[in-house]
Amino acid sequence: MNYQRFFEEAIDQIHAERRYRVFADLERIVGSFPQAIWRNNGEKREITVWCSNDYLGMGQHEDVIRAFQEAAGKMGSGAGGTRNISGNNHPLVELEHELADLHGKESGLVFTSGFISNEASISTIARLLPNCLILSDELNHASMIEGVRRSGAEKKIFRHNDVAHLESLLQAAGRERAKLIVFESVYSMDGDIAPIKEIADLAEKYNAMTYIDEVHAVGMYGPRGGGITDREGLAHRIDIIEGTLAKAFGTLGGYITGKTAIIDAVRSYAPGFIFTTALPPAIAAAATTSIRHLKNSQAERDAQQRQAARTKEVLASVGLPVMPSATHIVPILVGDPELCKMATDRLLGVHGIYIQPINYPTVPRGTERLRITPTPFHNDALIDVLKDALVETWNALGIPYRTEGQTSVAESERIVSLLVPKSGG
Amino acid sequence: MNYQRFFEEAIDQIHAERRYRVFADLERIVGSFPQAIWRNNGEKREITVWCSNDYLGMGQHEDVIRAFQEAAGKMGSGAGGTRNISGNNHPLVELEHELADLHGKESGLVFTSGFISNEASISTIARLLPNCLILSDELNHASMIEGVRRSGAEKKIFRHNDVAHLESLLQAAGRERAKLIVFESVYSMDGDIAPIKEIADLAEKYNAMTYIDEVHAVGMYGPRGGGITDREGLAHRIDIIEGTLAKAFGTLGGYITGKTAIIDAVRSYAPGFIFTTALPPAIAAAATTSIRHLKNSQAERDAQQRQAARTKEVLASVGLPVMPSATHIVPILVGDPELCKMATDRLLGVHGIYIQPINYPTVPRGTERLRITPTPFHNDALIDVLKDALVETWNALGIPYRTEGQTSVAESERIVSLLVPKSGG
Ligand SMILES: Cc1ncc(COP(=O)(O)O)c(C=O)c1O
Ligand SMILES: Cc1ncc(COP(=O)(O)O)c(C=O)c1O
Repeated sequence: MNYQRFFEEAIDQIHAERRYRVFADLERIVGSFPQAIWRNNGEKREITVWCSNDYLGMGQHEDVIRAFQEAAGKMGSGAGGTRNISGNNHPLVELEHELADLHGKESGLVFTSGFISNEASISTIARLLPNCLILSDELNHASMIEGVRRSGAEKKIFRHNDVAHLESLLQAAGRERAKLIVFESVYSMDGDIAPIKEIADLAEKYNAMTYIDEVHAVGMYGPRGGGITDREGLAHRIDIIEGTLAKAFGTLGGYITGKTAIIDAVRSYAPGFIFTTALPPAIAAAATTSIRHLKNSQAERDAQQRQAARTKEVLASVGLPVMPSATHIVPILVGDPELCKMATDRLLGVHGIYIQPINYPTVPRGTERLRITPTPFHNDALIDVLKDALVETWNALGIPYRTEGQTSVAESERIVSLLVPKSGG
Repeated sequence: MNYQRFFEEAIDQIHAERRYRVFADLERIVGSFPQAIWRNNGEKREITVWCSNDYLGMGQHEDVIRAFQEAAGKMGSGAGGTRNISGNNHPLVELEHELADLHGKESGLVFTSGFISNEASISTIARLLPNCLILSDELNHASMIEGVRRSGAEKKIFRHNDVAHLESLLQAAGRERAKLIVFESVYSMDGDIAPIKEIADLAEKYNAMTYIDEVHAVGMYGPRGGGITDREGLAHRIDIIEGTLAKAFGTLGGYITGKTAIIDAVRSYAPGFIFTTALPPAIAAAATTSIRHLKNSQAERDAQQRQAARTKEVLASVGLPVMPSATHIVPILVGDPELCKMATDRLLGVHGIYIQPINYPTVPRGTERLRITPTPFHNDALIDVLKDALVETWNALGIPYRTEGQTSVAESERIVSLLVPKSGG
């Protein structure tokens, strides 16, 4: 038994599939977002980040940083314990109230990440229900899949956003069986949106519980930044709304909100919540500041939508294969893993533009892509620079431009405009 | 199907078992550690925390806080992405080198918590080995149990620290089968230490891999704070050393260190590492500062050992039932869940002393206890105040003092002194 060999083979396999990942060594620059310092082979270089999930740049907002620094100065750099054993810091208590309010729910519960919030909550909720059947969208995030798996419950996968398929599964299960529907609002690789109302209707019709992941929507949609459920006035029709503090809110951590009995049960039964050190007060204070700011300010949401729409337009205008997206996410089709990696290497090396290639298994083979996330800080000049760099790269590598069969951006923009009220409110 | 009912019943059950937890709402005070502000029914009161896992008070160390604040000021409050997608911040890269160096290993890998580091690493390592058998100490932490479960591998539980039992299981499995031994160095509820050398000897004899959780030892033991494996010169004999940044190092996050092939495999295969936002640069910078400080400074370790020994002595001198412990952890036996809760309520309400009761299932029924964690900042005067408060509480509630059968503290101290080199070096 030579152990080392198995780990080496596992790595070799990743290499063979061209999926070996080298992480770009980055240092973000407060005040110059989306610029960052990239370290490579001992060299330092300033580059532009076009794939950050700090979607609104709140991670460099001065009020957020001030809250972060002040709380650290007053209360220290850590929580010092689990929630139950001395780690329940006051800013965290306030944060949970803020989150419950954000989604119009009775209670909130904060975890150290969105990942663990999904894993711990889905598994615990399903385990507390007798003979629960989980109905899970086929494109659900890895953290939700972990939760489903960990629950030990029976699961049925429904085709992505396919309400008819979901209904047939609900019908087969019957009204009397415990059922939990888990899905996302914004799917982050395509930027499409779930039919939340239809799913809520089905849940009511067949008496199922609903769990939505709003990780890629909170802060960015709805008049108060409560996500797509906020924008569409549907929050009250979903049992559990889950989100992250690490994307549009610019900090770290995850959470769920819902009825007190449910939240209290997860709080009391989930190992991933109980047996781990609480988030530091500085993180909680910064997150609360960010959430409060975005509850009251529409400017960031408007600017993000504007720059995302402009990015789609400008890139499409030169024939780049912008994939249809109903949100701030701008995927550009490459369709080949090698080309995808070569394109991003060239963008970074030649043009100082950092976009991570998205390959299988994150997306299906043949749909390898660049995933671009314009923020309010990606101004029109930066968009033009991006366009030129992409064109140069497309030409240099011979990557296909938009072909006939594809939905044109004009068309997808039309669809988007039907879905997205312009001011997000 | 009335869903609400199941969650309410789950909570009722916790109440019925007297295990319902109300988290103390605390605000730590930098510069006055271990003091904190306790909020209760709209009142604010300054109290003394005697159960923090910020074991050395590093969470309020001025260099650590400065590093935290400076990194936030320069790089912002969040990482902005997963490690692969724009979140790989430079301080995190440095932290991983620091951790590898701390344990004398080739590589390190940081997670958002010690919990997820255990869950993700144990499950991934076991899954990458064909037909792996996991041998797990019966008192392993919940996060390790989650990892074992998630791996889907066969597991055998060995009696706590029982080397003979472990050997019989290894022998039964044979040299040719893949085997992973998972255990802790310091068990946090009793404060006892694993027979690491004997386990390493067995691993060699039967060709097993070894995974140790040093969460309650890193920073606190060994000439550089590398944990018990550092103190005993055994780090090179253990394959994977896991630790936390959230206890003695005073921040947040968890990690593993080991051979590059193993670390790279976990990095490439573990969903709990891949699909989650990276730790913020400020947390990483603060953790690195803390680790570096404790690599070079013995003062905190010495002071912690001195105050822990003194606490044991002083409490034992008045007949309080101090349980034997080979470490900085000071458990006081109560032996009844109700009394345990009443004692801590009284300590907090009457004496302004905060100690969390430790009841079943965290410890076996009948061994309910107070778990006291003296730090370098719990000076002799505070220890005397604690002693008086405990005596008052013991008398008021009629909790038994030390009985004949118990190991006297003098005796347990003698045993401890055999195990613990006085200066930790
Ligand atoms: C849909 C979805 N849910 C949950 C998560 C996990 O959130 P976090 O980064 O806070 O762990 C992510 C990505 O990170 C995600 O894309
Ligand atoms: C033995 C042990 N391992 C791991 C953990 C988890 O570490 P963290 O708090 O960093 O999640 C804990 C407690 O929190 C623990 O006691």
